[in-house]
Amino acid sequence: MEKLGANPANSCPLTPLGFLERAATVFGDCPSVVYGSAVFTWSQTHRRCLRLASALVSLGISRRDVVSVLLPNVPAMYEAHFGVPMSGAVLNTINTRLDARTVSVLLRHSGSRLVLVDPALVPLLDDALRLLPPGHPAPRVVLVEDPSEKDPTPAAALTYERLLEMGDPDFVWVRPTSEWDPMVLNYTSGTTSAPKGVVHCHRGIFLVTLDSLVDWAVPPRPTYLWTLPMFHANGWSFPWGMAAVGGTNVCLRRVDAASVYAAIAAHGVTHLCGAPVVLGMLADAPEDARRPLPGKVRILTAGAPPPADVLHRVEAIGFDVGHGYGLTETGGHVVSCAWKGEWDKLPASGRARLKARQGVRTPGMTEVDIVDGDTGRSVPRDGATMGEIVLRCGCIMLGYLNDGEATKAAVREDGWFYTGDVGVMHPDGYLEIRDRSKDVIISGGENISSVEVESVLYGHPAVNEAAVVARPDEFWGETPCAFVSLKDGAVTAADVMAWCRERMAGYMVPKTVVFRAELPKTSTGKIQKYVLRNLAKEMGPTRRGSSSKM
Amino acid sequence: MEKLGANPANSCPLTPLGFLERAATVFGDCPSVVYGSAVFTWSQTHRRCLRLASALVSLGISRRDVVSVLLPNVPAMYEAHFGVPMSGAVLNTINTRLDARTVSVLLRHSGSRLVLVDPALVPLLDDALRLLPPGHPAPRVVLVEDPSEKDPTPAAALTYERLLEMGDPDFVWVRPTSEWDPMVLNYTSGTTSAPKGVVHCHRGIFLVTLDSLVDWAVPPRPTYLWTLPMFHANGWSFPWGMAAVGGTNVCLRRVDAASVYAAIAAHGVTHLCGAPVVLGMLADAPEDARRPLPGKVRILTAGAPPPADVLHRVEAIGFDVGHGYGLTETGGHVVSCAWKGEWDKLPASGRARLKARQGVRTPGMTEVDIVDGDTGRSVPRDGATMGEIVLRCGCIMLGYLNDGEATKAAVREDGWFYTGDVGVMHPDGYLEIRDRSKDVIISGGENISSVEVESVLYGHPAVNEAAVVARPDEFWGETPCAFVSLKDGAVTAADVMAWCRERMAGYMVPKTVVFRAELPKTSTGKIQKYVLRNLAKEMGPTRRGSSSKM
Repeated sequence: MEKLGANPANSCPLTPLGFLERAATVFGDCPSVVYGSAVFTWSQTHRRCLRLASALVSLGISRRDVVSVLLPNVPAMYEAHFGVPMSGAVLNTINTRLDARTVSVLLRHSGSRLVLVDPALVPLLDDALRLLPPGHPAPRVVLVEDPSEKDPTPAAALTYERLLEMGDPDFVWVRPTSEWDPMVLNYTSGTTSAPKGVVHCHRGIFLVTLDSLVDWAVPPRPTYLWTLPMFHANGWSFPWGMAAVGGTNVCLRRVDAASVYAAIAAHGVTHLCGAPVVLGMLADAPEDARRPLPGKVRILTAGAPPPADVLHRVEAIGFDVGHGYGLTETGGHVVSCAWKGEWDKLPASGRARLKARQGVRTPGMTEVDIVDGDTGRSVPRDGATMGEIVLRCGCIMLGYLNDGEATKAAVREDGWFYTGDVGVMHPDGYLEIRDRSKDVIISGGENISSVEVESVLYGHPAVNEAAVVARPDEFWGETPCAFVSLKDGAVTAADVMAWCRERMAGYMVPKTVVFRAELPKTSTGKIQKYVLRNLAKEMGPTRRGSSSKM
Repeated sequence: MEKLGANPANSCPLTPLGFLERAATVFGDCPSVVYGSAVFTWSQTHRRCLRLASALVSLGISRRDVVSVLLPNVPAMYEAHFGVPMSGAVLNTINTRLDARTVSVLLRHSGSRLVLVDPALVPLLDDALRLLPPGHPAPRVVLVEDPSEKDPTPAAALTYERLLEMGDPDFVWVRPTSEWDPMVLNYTSGTTSAPKGVVHCHRGIFLVTLDSLVDWAVPPRPTYLWTLPMFHANGWSFPWGMAAVGGTNVCLRRVDAASVYAAIAAHGVTHLCGAPVVLGMLADAPEDARRPLPGKVRILTAGAPPPADVLHRVEAIGFDVGHGYGLTETGGHVVSCAWKGEWDKLPASGRARLKARQGVRTPGMTEVDIVDGDTGRSVPRDGATMGEIVLRCGCIMLGYLNDGEATKAAVREDGWFYTGDVGVMHPDGYLEIRDRSKDVIISGGENISSVEVESVLYGHPAVNEAAVVARPDEFWGETPCAFVSLKDGAVTAADVMAWCRERMAGYMVPKTVVFRAELPKTSTGKIQKYVLRNLAKEMGPTRRGSSSKM
C-alpha cells in the first residue's frame, strides 16, 4: 500500500481547458455563443480558441505572461477564457467600469503584455496607457471589432479577427506543467478601495467549475444568458462550465430589463446569474419591457444578500432563484442555500427569509466555519453570535499577486482562508452573512450588522435603496448612519427612524438618515460603502442623544 | 507569479467523505437508506458511520489497514463506504459470489484485519478462513445481522450493531494526510481468472464521483435503487454520489425483475445503474412481475455493450437508458454515450445502434484515445481500425496492490493507462468497444471482433445469449466459435451460420456453433469468456473448410 501513489496516468494536471475539446466533439454542430445575429458552433469556438492561443504564442507570449482583456460580454470575451490560458498565459479580465488611473495601475501591477480591447473602451485604455510611468513597456493592443460599435481612431494596428487569422486552428495547446500553474488573475473590485490581484490555478478553476455544475444541478445543453459580467470573478466559473455541459452562451453588450427579457424570450434562456441588482431590475421592469418567460428560468444570485421582498417578486414572475455565496478569492460560489422540500410549505415571506440566507457549503467544498476573530474558535450555532466566515477547499486562490503580506493575512497557517465577511451560524447549520468585517458598526461595544439594519430599511414601502455605515460618535464610538434613496419623496428622516425603532433594538436604529437620489455603486452593482463611510466621517461625530438628517 | 502555489487553505486533501457531513446538515431529516421496513435519515447515517469509524479505531484498526466486507446491498454495506475509510482504513468490498478459495486468497493478499459479513455468507467466510495458511493471522469477524436471514451458528462473537454501540457518534474522523492516500481496494472479478487488487485514493474517488454526477446530470434528492452490487467497483462511485446530492438509497438483498419493479413503484425510484443483464431482466420480465413506472426512470448501464434490441425494448417500457464505460481501474464511468438532440429523429433501430456505442469521455476526464498496440499511435477515426483504448485522468487507480509488474504493464511511462479493451474510433469522435484484447480472434491475420459477431447473433430471433471465442485452427490459426443459448430449440448450427453469412464477411462467420442451455457468467452478469475459450481449446483445432457443431 505504501508504494502506491501518483503515477503517470492519474497525475495529469486538472484543468478546465479540456472541456472545450470535448464540447467540440460532442456538441460540434450545436450553438456555443450567440451574439446579436452572430451564432458560433462549439466546433467553431474550439478552432477560434486554438487560433487565439496559437497567435498569442507566435507574438511571443509565453507561460505565465499576463494577457489582459477590457471587454464586455462579447464572443471574444468568452473565447479569451480558453484561448488565453491555452497559450500558457494568464488571463486578466479587467473591470470595464474602472477609471483610467486604476486601469493603468492594474496593467502595470500585472505586467500585462497584451490587451484585447472593445471599441467603446479604447479611449479608456488610451488614457490608461498614457498614465503608465515613463519607460514602462506598454502592452500590445488588439482591437476587438464589434458590429454595433464604430471603429475608433485606429489605436490598434492589429484587430482580433486578423489575430485569429494568424493562428493555427490545429494548434497543440500549451498544457499546464502542473495543476497549480496560474491560469487567471482578477483584481478585486468593489467595496474596498485597494484592488488586489487574485490568482487562481488550473486545479482550482477545474474544481469550482465542476462543483458549481453539481450544486446548481445544471443539465446538459442549457441556454445561459450572460447578465453577469465575465470580468467579475470570471462569471463565477460558468464560461468553463458551459463548455462542460455544451450550453449556449447568449451574450449581451449591455444589461437592461428590456434586453434581458427580450433575450430570454428570443433564445429560450434557461439559466442566468446575476447580482441582486439584476433581480431588482427584473422585478421593477416596466410593463412594456417585459416578455412572458418561455419556461422556468433559473437564476443564481450572489454578491450581496438579496432583499427578501425582491426575491419574492422575482419568483412571482416565474424565475426560480438560487442564492449562493463566493468571493473572487474562491473562483465561484462555495456556499449555497440548498433548498429543502419542506420549506415549500411556508408562506412566501418565510420562504424568502430562508432563501436570503447564504446557506451551506457546496458538495465539492471541504469545510466552512464561522469563527471568533480573537480566539479562532467556532461561534455557537445560535443565529446571533457574529464571527468571521472562514473556508478551506481546493478552489481557494493561490494568493494575491506580488502581495505576500495580504496573502498571509487572508490565507493563514491554521489552514483557513479568512474571508473578511461577518456572519452567523443558524442552529440548522445554514450560515447567514451579516456584514463585511469592516462594515460592522461597533456602538457602545455592541456589534451592529449593517445588513440587518438595511434589510429593515428595505422593508419600508417608500425605500428604493439603503446602505448603513458607521458614523463617529463622541459617546458611543460609532452610531449607524443610513443612506437612503426613495421611490417617492414623501418620507422624513424621523419617519425612517420611527420605522426602524418599531423593528429593532434601540442601539441599532440609525441616528443619522441621509437621503440621496442615488447611492454610489461599483460596476457590479454593489453599493460602495467606503464612499459612504468617508461621507459619514466628514459629517463629524454625532453627539449623545442627537439625531441628524440631511 | 512564480511564488504562488499550493497553500494551507487550498491544499486540503480532496476526499468524498465530507459529502456525508454536508448531507447530514442539509438533508438531515430526509431518508438516506431504505431497506425493507427500515428507513434511515441522513443524520442517522452520518452518526452511524462515525460510530463505525470510531469503533474500528478502538479495535486497533489504523491508517492503511484493510477492512473487508462480504455483504449484499444492505445498509451496513452503504455505511461501510464512509465508516471504514473514516477510520483511516482501506475498504475492501469482496464479490459475494466468489468461491471460498478465492475469498481466502483475497483475504490473505489484502492482509485484511477485519471482515463484516452477512449471515447468508458466514459459511463461505468460514470456509475461506479455514483455507488461510497456518500461522496467517485471521481477520476479526463482525456479523451484520439481517431481519430477513436466520442468525447462523455464531461464528462472530461481535455483531455490527454491537460494534456501532461501542463507537462514538461525535467521533472526529480520520482525515487523509494526503489526497493520494489509499481509500478503497477492489479485486477485479470477471472475465479473467487472475484477480488483481485495484487501489484507489481519496482524490480519485472524489473526482470520479463529481464527474459522474455532472455527466449523468443527477439532480438533487434522487431516489436511487441499488441493483448494481456495491461490491462491483464500489457501485460506480454512487455510494458517495448519493451523499453529495442527498439522494435516497433503496437497498435490495436480491435483484430479480419482480423486486425491482416493486421497489421502483413503492419508492418512486428515479435512477438506477445496472449491467446489460439487468436491462435484459427488465425487458423480459413476465407480465405479473411488472408494475407501471411512477415516472421517467433513468438507467445507467455499463460493463458490456448492451444489445441494441434490449435497449430498444427497455426504452419502450419507459426507462431512459444512458450508456457508459469504465473499469474497476477508473473507479466509475469515464466514457459515456453523450446524446445528441438530432439523434431523436432517427428510427428506433438507428437510435439503439448509436446508443450501443460507448461514446466520449466524461467532462472530468482528461483524455481518451485508441492506439495501435505496436506503435502507440492513434488509430484513424474510421469506425473500423481496431486499437487499444487508453485513458488518462485523475481517477485512474494508484495501481494493483503488491503487483508492481501488472501496474507497470497497465500504467505506462507514456502517461496512459492501457485498458486491455479493444475498440474503434468513429468519424464523429465516439468510440465503440469491439473486444477485450484477449477476446479478439485472429483468423488468417485478420482481427475479428467477437462483439461484432455476437451482435449479429443477438439479432437472430431465436437466440437468447451468445458469446464468440477463438478456437484453434490448423490453417487459419484461429476461427470464431460461437456458444449460443436459445429461446426455443428449433434452430440448427447450420441455420445460425447461414444467418451470419448473410450479415458479415465470410471469415467472420463462426465455423463452430455450440448450443448450451445457459452460458457461464460472473457474479455481475458478464459471460465468462475464459471458460468458453478453454472449452473451445479442448475441442481441438478445426480443419480447413470444416464446420462443427455440438
